Order: sequence, then C-alpha cells, then structure tokens
Amino acid sequence: MAFTRFIDLTAPAAERLREDTVAVLPIGAIEQHGPHLPVATDYYIAEAIAEGAARAAGETCDITLLPGLAYAKSDEHAWSGGTLWLGARTLLAVLDDIGRSLAAGPVRRLAFLNAHGGNSALLGVVLRELRTRHGLRTFLLHASLPADQGGTSPASELGLGVHGGLNETAAMRHLHPELVDMAQARRSVPDHLTAYEYIGFGKPVSFGWTSDDFGTGNGVIGDPAPATPELGRKLVEAAIANNAAALRECARFLPYRPTG
Amino acid sequence: MAFTRFIDLTAPAAERLREDTVAVLPIGAIEQHGPHLPVATDYYIAEAIAEGAARAAGETCDITLLPGLAYAKSDEHAWSGGTLWLGARTLLAVLDDIGRSLAAGPVRRLAFLNAHGGNSALLGVVLRELRTRHGLRTFLLHASLPADQGGTSPASELGLGVHGGLNETAAMRHLHPELVDMAQARRSVPDHLTAYEYIGFGKPVSFGWTSDDFGTGNGVIGDPAPATPELGRKLVEAAIANNAAALRECARFLPYRPTG
Amino acid sequence: MAFTRFIDLTAPAAERLREDTVAVLPIGAIEQHGPHLPVATDYYIAEAIAEGAARAAGETCDITLLPGLAYAKSDEHAWSGGTLWLGARTLLAVLDDIGRSLAAGPVRRLAFLNAHGGNSALLGVVLRELRTRHGLRTFLLHASLPADQGGTSPASELGLGVHGGLNETAAMRHLHPELVDMAQARRSVPDHLTAYEYIGFGKPVSFGWTSDDFGTGNGVIGDPAPATPELGRKLVEAAIANNAAALRECARFLPYRPTG
Amino acid sequence: MAFTRFIDLTAPAAERLREDTVAVLPIGAIEQHGPHLPVATDYYIAEAIAEGAARAAGETCDITLLPGLAYAKSDEHAWSGGTLWLGARTLLAVLDDIGRSLAAGPVRRLAFLNAHGGNSALLGVVLRELRTRHGLRTFLLHASLPADQGGTSPASELGLGVHGGLNETAAMRHLHPELVDMAQARRSVPDHLTAYEYIGFGKPVSFGWTSDDFGTGNGVIGDPAPATPELGRKLVEAAIANNAAALRECARFLPYRPTG
Amino acid sequence: MAFTRFIDLTAPAAERLREDTVAVLPIGAIEQHGPHLPVATDYYIAEAIAEGAARAAGETCDITLLPGLAYAKSDEHAWSGGTLWLGARTLLAVLDDIGRSLAAGPVRRLAFLNAHGGNSALLGVVLRELRTRHGLRTFLLHASLPADQGGTSPASELGLGVHGGLNETAAMRHLHPELVDMAQARRSVPDHLTAYEYIGFGKPVSFGWTSDDFGTGNGVIGDPAPATPELGRKLVEAAIANNAAALRECARFLPYRPTG
Amino acid sequence: MAFTRFIDLTAPAAERLREDTVAVLPIGAIEQHGPHLPVATDYYIAEAIAEGAARAAGETCDITLLPGLAYAKSDEHAWSGGTLWLGARTLLAVLDDIGRSLAAGPVRRLAFLNAHGGNSALLGVVLRELRTRHGLRTFLLHASLPADQGGTSPASELGLGVHGGLNETAAMRHLHPELVDMAQARRSVPDHLTAYEYIGFGKPVSFGWTSDDFGTGNGVIGDPAPATPELGRKLVEAAIANNAAALRECARFLPYRPTG
Repeated sequence: MAFTRFIDLTAPAAERLREDTVAVLPIGAIEQHGPHLPVATDYYIAEAIAEGAARAAGETCDITLLPGLAYAKSDEHAWSGGTLWLGARTLLAVLDDIGRSLAAGPVRRLAFLNAHGGNSALLGVVLRELRTRHGLRTFLLHASLPADQGGTSPASELGLGVHGGLNETAAMRHLHPELVDMAQARRSVPDHLTAYEYIGFGKPVSFGWTSDDFGTGNGVIGDPAPATPELGRKLVEAAIANNAAALRECARFLPYRPTG
Repeated sequence: MAFTRFIDLTAPAAERLREDTVAVLPIGAIEQHGPHLPVATDYYIAEAIAEGAARAAGETCDITLLPGLAYAKSDEHAWSGGTLWLGARTLLAVLDDIGRSLAAGPVRRLAFLNAHGGNSALLGVVLRELRTRHGLRTFLLHASLPADQGGTSPASELGLGVHGGLNETAAMRHLHPELVDMAQARRSVPDHLTAYEYIGFGKPVSFGWTSDDFGTGNGVIGDPAPATPELGRKLVEAAIANNAAALRECARFLPYRPTG
Repeated sequence: MAFTRFIDLTAPAAERLREDTVAVLPIGAIEQHGPHLPVATDYYIAEAIAEGAARAAGETCDITLLPGLAYAKSDEHAWSGGTLWLGARTLLAVLDDIGRSLAAGPVRRLAFLNAHGGNSALLGVVLRELRTRHGLRTFLLHASLPADQGGTSPASELGLGVHGGLNETAAMRHLHPELVDMAQARRSVPDHLTAYEYIGFGKPVSFGWTSDDFGTGNGVIGDPAPATPELGRKLVEAAIANNAAALRECARFLPYRPTG
Repeated sequence: MAFTRFIDLTAPAAERLREDTVAVLPIGAIEQHGPHLPVATDYYIAEAIAEGAARAAGETCDITLLPGLAYAKSDEHAWSGGTLWLGARTLLAVLDDIGRSLAAGPVRRLAFLNAHGGNSALLGVVLRELRTRHGLRTFLLHASLPADQGGTSPASELGLGVHGGLNETAAMRHLHPELVDMAQARRSVPDHLTAYEYIGFGKPVSFGWTSDDFGTGNGVIGDPAPATPELGRKLVEAAIANNAAALRECARFLPYRPTG
Repeated sequence: MAFTRFIDLTAPAAERLREDTVAVLPIGAIEQHGPHLPVATDYYIAEAIAEGAARAAGETCDITLLPGLAYAKSDEHAWSGGTLWLGARTLLAVLDDIGRSLAAGPVRRLAFLNAHGGNSALLGVVLRELRTRHGLRTFLLHASLPADQGGTSPASELGLGVHGGLNETAAMRHLHPELVDMAQARRSVPDHLTAYEYIGFGKPVSFGWTSDDFGTGNGVIGDPAPATPELGRKLVEAAIANNAAALRECARFLPYRPTG
Repeated sequence: MAFTRFIDLTAPAAERLREDTVAVLPIGAIEQHGPHLPVATDYYIAEAIAEGAARAAGETCDITLLPGLAYAKSDEHAWSGGTLWLGARTLLAVLDDIGRSLAAGPVRRLAFLNAHGGNSALLGVVLRELRTRHGLRTFLLHASLPADQGGTSPASELGLGVHGGLNETAAMRHLHPELVDMAQARRSVPDHLTAYEYIGFGKPVSFGWTSDDFGTGNGVIGDPAPATPELGRKLVEAAIANNAAALRECARFLPYRPTG
C-alpha cells in the first residue's frame, strides 16, 4: 500500500502496480479567469487537491498519481486571450489513448480529479467509454466541495459563482498568493439570471453559454472580493480530506455484491 | 405564436419561423429495458412529453417540434440484444449537423427534451458546441420529474431506480399499456451500492458502469413492480406541465440583462 | 413468421429474432420539397411504404421494422430553409453503428427502404461495408416504382421529374392530403437539360447538382400539377406490393447455390 | 483548345488553364481479377480510355488529364491476395483533397473516368460534395459501354458478367495481351442468381456482396473464355469515342438555361 | 528471385510473393516547381529511381514495384496553381490502408522511395505505424543522393537548394528533357537565411515554411541555371545504384541478431 | 523583454504578449526507459532544458513558457508497462488545437522543445500545418546536443545510443539523481546493426522499429553504465545555453529579407 508518482516509476515498477491500484489523473484548464487570477487556476487547484488526496489515501491504499492535464475543454472561454484549449473530440481522443495505454498494464482503476466545470460533461462520456472499451473501472471526483460538506456560496454570489468567484479565488490565495491580484477582484454576477425559474446554473434546465454571454465584462462569474487565504486553506484542506476518503472507496469499490 | 410540427411545414413556412421560435428535439434510446418494457421506452416517453409540452407552450410561444431521435447513446446496454446505439462521436456529429443546418435558417433556439440518462453527458457537450459553433441558444430539458416537483422514488428502490424502474414503467403503463408485461416486472436493485458513501448514482463521485455490472441479472435497475397506470398518468402530466413552463422560459431567455 | 415493430419488442423478444429475420430500415429526408409539399415528404413516403410492405411480407416471413431515419443526406437542398441534413461521413457513421449493434444480436439481414434519391449513392457504399464489417446481408429497396412496373412519368416532366414532381405529390395527396397545397403546385422542369445527350438524370453521365442549379426558382424539379390522390393511391399500393415481394425474396436470398 | 497532361505542365501553365477546362481523373483499382487477368486491370482500362477520350475531345475543347488513381475502393475483393485498397472514408478524403486543391486554381470542371464498379457509389457521393464544397462542376463517366451503345453481354454470362468476364478480358487482350493468360480464363457465373426476381446485378434491389460470396471459387463473375483481342479493340475504341463525345458535352454543360 | 511489377501480377501470383519480398512504393508530388519544371517533377524522379533500383535489386532479391503515389503532401506549395495535394491525415490514411491490405497477403517488407522532402516527416510517422499496426518491416529510401555519396550542392545554392534547384533540374533534363524550359530557369536562393546560425535547412532548428515565405518570387529555392543533362544522368544513375544496394539490404535486414 | 510562465499570467497579461513573443512548448514522453530510469525521463529533460533556455533567452527577448506535454507519441514502447501514449492522430489534434488557440491571441511564434526522438517526425508535420493553418512561425528545438556541439557518443554505444543510454542517464543523474538506479544500468546495444551499411539509426535508410525488436531484452538502446552526474551537468548546461541562443534567433527570425 503506497502512494507513488507514476512519472517517477521505472517501467518494471509500473508493471508491478496492482489491479486495485487507483490511478489518479488531475485535469484542469488553461483559460481566462478574470483579471485577478492566473489562467492556470483550475490546473493549480486540480494538481494540489489530487496530490494531497492521493498522498493521504496512499497511506492505506495503493494510489499512483498520473501527470495532470493542463490543456482541456474551455470552449466557453475561447473568446479571450489566455485560453488554450482542446476541442471535445481531441480531448475524447486524449483520454481514450491514456485509458487504453494504462489498461495495457496491470492497473484497472482510474479516477479523474477535475477542477474545471467545463470538463465535466465530457468526462461523463469518458467514464463509460473507458469502462466499455478498455475494461477500466472509472471514477469522477471534483476538486470543489459541495455546499453540504463545507463548500461556501456567499450571499453576494446568489448561487451563481461558477468561474473566478469566491471559492477559486480563496483557494488560489492559499495555494499561490503571489499569483492573485486582489486589487482586480471585482464582483461580476449575472443577477438577472435569478429571474428565471427553470433555466440557470444548477437549475433543472441547463443551457449552452460562454463566459462573455452575460454582459458582465471581465469573464468572471462570481464574487471574488471577499476571498481570504484562510477560507482558501479551509476549502483546500476539506477538499483533500473529502477526496482522499473518496479515493479509498475507489480502491475497494465493486458494482456487484462481492461473494464469499 | 403557434405550435408547429417541423416535418409538416413547407420550406417557405420553415423560412418564416422566427429568431425566438424554440425548436424542440426529443431524444430517447433503443435499448434493453428489462423483460417487461419495450426497447423504445425512452423514445416513447421523450416523444410523448416533448409533444405534450410543445403543444402547451405553443399556446403562448412559437414552438416547432423536430423529428425525434430514436437511436442514441446506449453503450451501457450494448451487452444485450435489442440495443441499437450510436457511438459518442457519431451522436456528436449527428447533433452538430442538425444544429448546423437548423442555424442556416431563421431559428436560433434549440431545446433538447431528453428521456435517457445515458445521453445527458453528451448533450452537455453539445449544448456548448452548438452555442459556440453555430450561434444557437441551446437548452437541455428532461422528461423525468425531479423528486421535489412531484417525482417519485419508492422506498424499495433505495434511490437507485435509474433504468426500467418505477417511474418509467408507470409512464409506459399510462402511455402504451399494451407494451408492458407486468408479469415480468421484478425488483432488481443493487442494494449493496448503498454501502458506499461517495460513489453511486446521484452521489458526489460518479462512475463508469454498464447495466450488467451489478449482478442483478435482467438489466433492470429499479423496482417496477408497484408501477400503476395512474402513477404514470400523474408523472406524464406533471412532466408535460413542467416542461411546457420551461419551454416558455426558453422562448424568452436571455443570458444578459436586456436593455431598454 | 411474423411482422414486428422492433421498438415494441422487449429485449428478450429481440434476442429471439432469427438469422433469417429481415430488419427493415426506412430512410427519408427532411428537405425543401417546393412550396406545395412538407419538408418530410420523403420520410412520410418511406415510412408508409416500409410499414406497408413489411406488414405484407410479414405474413409469410419474419420481418422486423426498425425506427426510420428522418434526417439523412440532403446536401443538394442545403441552400433552402427547411432542410435539416447529415453530412456523408455522419450518415456513414450512423448506419455503421446501427448495423454493428444490430449484428450484435441474432438478425443477419438488413433491408433499407429508401425514399430519397440523394441517399442512394451513400447507401450503396453502406450495403457493402455492413456486409464486410459486420457480416450482415444487406439490401437496398426503393419507395418509388420503376416505370416498367407501374411507375409514371408524364409527358410534361420530360423524364426530369426527380423532386417534388408528379409521383411524390400524388403519393402525398393520398397519404397526407392535409399537408399538400395544390395551389402552390407549379411545373418547374429544366427542359433545357434535354438538349444534352450524355449528361442528365438517368443518362450515361451523372453530374453533381444542387436543386437551385437549374434556374427554376422554387426547388421543384418536376410537374406536380397533374397529381391526383387516386394516382397516389395506385402508386403507393403498387410500391407496397412490389416491396413486399422484394422483402420476401430478401428473407430467402442466398448469393451462393444452396446445397442439399 | 488543347489536350494537356496536367503532370507535364509548369505551375504557370497550370494557372493558365480555364474555367471551362475539363480535368479528367481516371480511377481504377488494384484487386484480384481472377487467375487470368492482372490485378490492375481496371486501372489499365481507366487510363487507356481516359487518355484516348481526353486526347480526342482535346481537339475541340480544353481538356487536362490528371494522374490516375490506382488504389481505390475494393472491399469486395479484400479476401484475396493482390487486392490493395482504400477504405471508403479514405477515398472520400483523397477525392475531396484533390477537388479542393484543383478548385484553388482556375479549373471548374472535373470528370471522373471510372473503370471499377466498386467505386461508383462512392463517386456518386463525391460528385455532389465537390459541387457543394468547392464549387466544381463534376461528372462521372464510365469506361464500360452500355449494351445499347455497343456494349456486349454474351448469353453465357446471363447478364451477370460484372468482374473479370468477357468485356474486361477482351479489353485487356487488346491493350495488354502479354498480361492475359487465357489458359486460366474459365467461366465462373453465379447462374442461380437468375432465380431471383428482385435482387441481383442490375435488378431493382441491389445487395451487399463480396466476390467470394457466390461460391464460384476463383473470384471471377462472368465468362472470359470467349474474349478476343478484336472484341477488345472494338470495345475500347467505342468507349473512347463515346467518352470523348461526353467530355465535349462536359466542357459546355450548364445546368441552367443560358441567357442571351 | 525476381523483379515484378505488382500491377501486372495475377492474384494467384501476388499470393505467391514471399515474406522477404520487398514491396517498393514510389512517392512523389504534384506541386509547383518553378516556371521551368513540370509540376510532377518529384513524381517522375521517384518513379524513375524506384523502378531502376527495383529492377537492379531484383536480380538478386525478390522485389515487387507498387503503383506510385503522385498526389502527396505539398501544403508548403498550396499557394500556387498546379499544386494538387493531400492533407496529412488523408495521406496517413492512404498509407495505412495500403499497408493494411498489403499485410493481408504474404509480403512483410515495404520500402518507400520518396522524392519529395515535404513527405519525409509524415513517412517517418508511417514507418512506425505500419510496423506496430500491421507487422510490416518498413523502410524509407530517398531519391536524392547525399552529398557524401555523389550528391551535389553548388556554391551558388549556399546549401539552400531544396526545391527546383540544381539537382532536380538536372535529373529532369536527363529523364524528360522535353519538359524542362531552361529559359525560365533562374537562380532563386534565400541568401539571407545564411545569416542564421541555428535555424535553417539542415540546421539544428527546423522551421515551418511555405515556398512563398522567402520573398524570392517564383517558388524555386535553389539555382537551376547550371543544371545539365549530363549531371542529371550521373545523379540518377548514382541514386539508382545506391538505392538498389539499399533495397538488397532491406530484403535481408533483421533488427535482431539472427540465431543459428 | 521578459521571461514569463504562461500559466501564471492573467488573461489581460496574456493578451499583452507580443507578435515577437516566442511561446516555448516542452514535449517529452511517458514511456519505458529501461530498469534504471523513470518513465518520465524525456519529460523531465524537456521541462528542465526548456525552462532553463527560456529563462536565459528571456533576458533579452520576450519568451513565454507553455505547460509541457508529458503524454506524447511512444508507440515504439507500447509493448511495455509504464508507457502511456497518444496515437499520431490524437497528438496531431492536440498540437493543432494548442496552435489554433494560441494564434487566437497576439503570439505568432511557437517553439517546440522536444526531448523524445519518437515525437520528431510528427512535430515535423505539425511545424508546417501550424504555419499554413494558423499563421504561426514554428520552430523545432531539441533537448539533446549534437556531437559537434558538445554531445557525447561513447565508443561502447557504437553510435546506437538512442534510448536510455549514456546521455539521458547522465542528464537524469544530474537533474533527478534520486530517480536513477545505476545498479540496473546495463549496456544494451544492438551491435549487429553496425553490419548494415544503409539501414540504421542516423543512416541513409530509416526503418520502422519498436524497442523490443532488437532482442536486447530490457528496452534500453545504449550504454548507460558510464553515465555520471558531472557529464549530465555538462550536457544539460550546454543544451540550455545552446537552446537559449536558438530561442533568441527564433524571436527575430524572418524567412524573407527584411526591408528598410
């Protein structure tokens, strides 16, 4: 039972990984995150939480951390400089190739640790394809913390803090304070969306949007102003603990009732 | 303001549709639904609720109903006879082609009415691509009803009724009773999944599964036994009313604050 | 020996279909059909003749009717509103996926019933690919009736009635009279094409055309004016009888001389 | 007005070709042709008739002969050694690329001269795509001669001579006698196909076949035995004359009525 | 031991080729070659040297010459009329299909004889893919002669003669003098590139260029003026001898130490 | 003039990059590197040399370092555990997407810093495609040092040290000594390849190989035994200096003679 970084293994060591080893693949994005956050915000967060959770889970399970993906699916931010992104078919192909070549070795469990909402739908497709095409047990974990497990959603965000808002800004102030420019952190919330009953973030009807659709100007959807490093520390630590527990479950999960 | 069936329009009439006309595309599946339901269960439900909601919304908005898609993404049921399905890249191409050719005309709003959970992730990718590639405002509506709006989840399903269970069986007993064989309707629930805290249907960690992964034998995941036509009627009527209201919102939705 | 609608089968029933069951797939189009016919004219005709022929053949053979394809290959009408179409590679992928998943079950015979000339070349490619890739015996049947079997070609069409002309209009007046606007049915025939000896519809040299290439204005290529419901009835009944006989042959066809 | 070989032009000369220049692209196949004919039979015939017809038409029109395609679509012969072939999507891409790059220059007319039946359906798709995608006027000419214009179909072939039979063997005895081994030329006709009324070569219902489906053993479908060089000479000369006349029509063809 | 032209073999003869037969595939280009050379210069050279080398090697080995590829990868010349080219993915598909279908027969060695520098990188990818996908031993030979084996690089070219310069012009004056217009053969060398230490043709840093990037006007990169037929004869004869020796090595090459 | 890490820029800062900014993209591999080196050897080397060279060049030019690619093209090592790789078409798509989205902003120069020989051919294709498709000036730099600029090739490698041999091992002993197990570093050189005159690494005829083709057993092709950290330090420092100089040239390179 151990934590390993896959890239540091020799080939013979990689071949000694186990059927119940969980390979963890962090996935972020390189995309505009407003004027106050670096374009790799989601990548930094994915890497930090994935490594933290993997190391913690590795104390009792066999976990190997794969190199993370910085370039991912950010078509909703393609209008802005600073966004480097892969089309949906390209990212499908990348993840299929990684799954296929991982499955050529002993590992049979692959957990994505995703920090960018724009990747989630595509990863949902991938979960099933890697299961049916390559026989991998696949899992999708999220870097953010649901509200009922410590996640925060300030009143000023009206439940609309989906990009560059309070939580991401706080996490970055904790992880990489030198990369955050709070002087540029301004509330930018599409308040008028609350007028809709069905359509909206987290509402029954989802919709196709880009981050310049809302008329808020700077690409942020949320309120980064109240973000503190202390809040960031709490969010990151909780997300690591939460995902470590989830990874431990990934290591022993069986869809069917075990016999005997 | 009117309801139209797109297939019945002449070309000149199709060219007179409007920017705020909502095109509604039902999408189902042809896949095993256990021994008691027809393989087109999701297609029948999608068509019924889409047409019902479209007609109702068409009383106050301009709505045009597109031909529905029967063949969709059912890789989780590919192990069974009766499943006819499109790969993810194929379905992406189909939906992109439909969106591209729709956007060559006047309509700028496209709402998917989906009755098959296996399509949802892919549709999430499509929502954004049709927005960025073809300039369509896109929406994803669901044929099923959330629990807090009248949806049901009986105790015997343990929250695991995702395929061929109570609600789908009831809806089909209402819509097409002659196609349901209640003598074959047996509870088939992977109870052991409740032992996991993080991984599971509707839990924080989603996972890649096929419907023969759970060891329950007949492809059903749920408890169809208590399904009645009366429950089905209530569910269908509520879903139609709910989606009609959502479609009315689709017809006037703007992501930005309207001026003036 | 029976006729079944595939979508109404349960999965176990679908698995009980036979090697000599003929699956029938209607394929039409959603495309401009002039000012007098609905855009789904070819789809309506494909469905009507496929179901009629399948039911008739099902009296002595095992026939299962698949859900038809409304969206197909209509690039020649892409210039007009009302045309929703799939690119050639998309439709190849759709038909390959349907063939692949059908061949995963017991059925080994697949007959396309096509009502749109623009699909024919692509279906010719598909016939062979489904044979070599998936081991299906494949057949291509046509909804229209050749002239020597009762098909009509009025003098006024000069043999150029290929789209929205006499036969399609008559068939629709029979099948869906409420969708035909005879007040808009005007002769629109590219008479000048008769000046070419080699190049033309049905001539030795085929050519790449779009329906707005001919300078006739309304997208029709033919003369719908003389179309009557009675002619439509005759055409449809003859096409059903003809295709029923063809399907019976599909059910017993062997390319090699049977032994014993 | 002239005949040119495109490959012998300098780039400036290629840029001086005209809107009404007809580019002629021969397309054959490399595939088993029975024990008596070389695998490139269709390629040899395509090249000979294309060059002959192009030179003849070039006396009164502007014609440029493109390099021919030897590798084409021969999936029906993939079971045999000697068959080198491109998949349908590959050949679509090749022809699209050639059309796209040709259309980047002055030429706007492209005529395929095809000698392999297995290419015809795909070329039908290509005709329209090059028209709609790249604005080329496209034409499909055939190396074989229809029966009513001098083509032959001996009684012994029962109308089933589609591969390696009388006409192809005769043409090769005329063009490349040293490559034909008449000692191996044996009748191989699937006589039993005549028992079908609807399904068959040239009948109303086409079917997906491979050349080893018929149980005739050597890949031939026809009767090469009576083939003579003299018949070959007549066929080739007639096909050249016929296609030269067709090319002249291609040079002046307009789908619409010319004005003025 | 023999030389054969693949296209002249019957199918049974193709099936009698051997595991150690080397299939030789010439590959050229159809692309602008300046005002003095035909667009098929590279194709002519590839064919001449491939056939010459194959015939010579065929005296002691089993060599079969495949039909050459005229259309190849010329995106760097796409700006000019006379260039007909395949995209990288198309050419990858073509070469994969040829390799796949060749490997369905007995031959296991495939040597590309390439005369166009723009193909080389793609062929490098293909060498490995045909090895891993289809089990072919693959080799890449070049029609040009390295300087240390008789290749020439005149002072006036400054080492920059990569397209339409001395060697190609000389080879064509030898092979097809009627196609060369020396009156148009003018020096066109991007002398200023010599100012760079790292970046340049044959320097440590390669760069993405098109043949109209250099401001030299006519698409030539080199100095064709001093080219003589006699030089061409020497180059062609040396390249044939050189490649014949290489092909003999291809016929016996093993990557591992043979045992016994 | 400055060095920046792209991932640390805010979007507005990314939009202030310049036309002559050189974006540097390190590309390595995750693949077996013998029993003594980690699978990410090429990735570590690419990152170290890219960052070193970019920082040095950034003193006088504008350089931005992009996130490196760990997963790349390693099909020659696919036989071994520890190899995670992308197919050629996938990697083409990834690099095209990165180039496309980079070119949507102000930067017009992109330099690949490659440390894996298996990527080189594909990158050669990409250089040109990003130039023609997206208007980027592209460059390919190598992490290894040519022999005439300080590169080493010990007698024991016979010029065959292409994978896991002296230089890579030395570089890793310098960069990450804790990841190298010299006890497992054994000479594994396919000496017999020296018997071929034409075919071989760096010889006129390249060939398609996998790293288990040579019968040497452990995937290494070279002699790592004499590798010392001191040699590694010299190699890395020289490669950084060399590539820094090359990057400075990339920042000012023009293919044409500048005017004025």
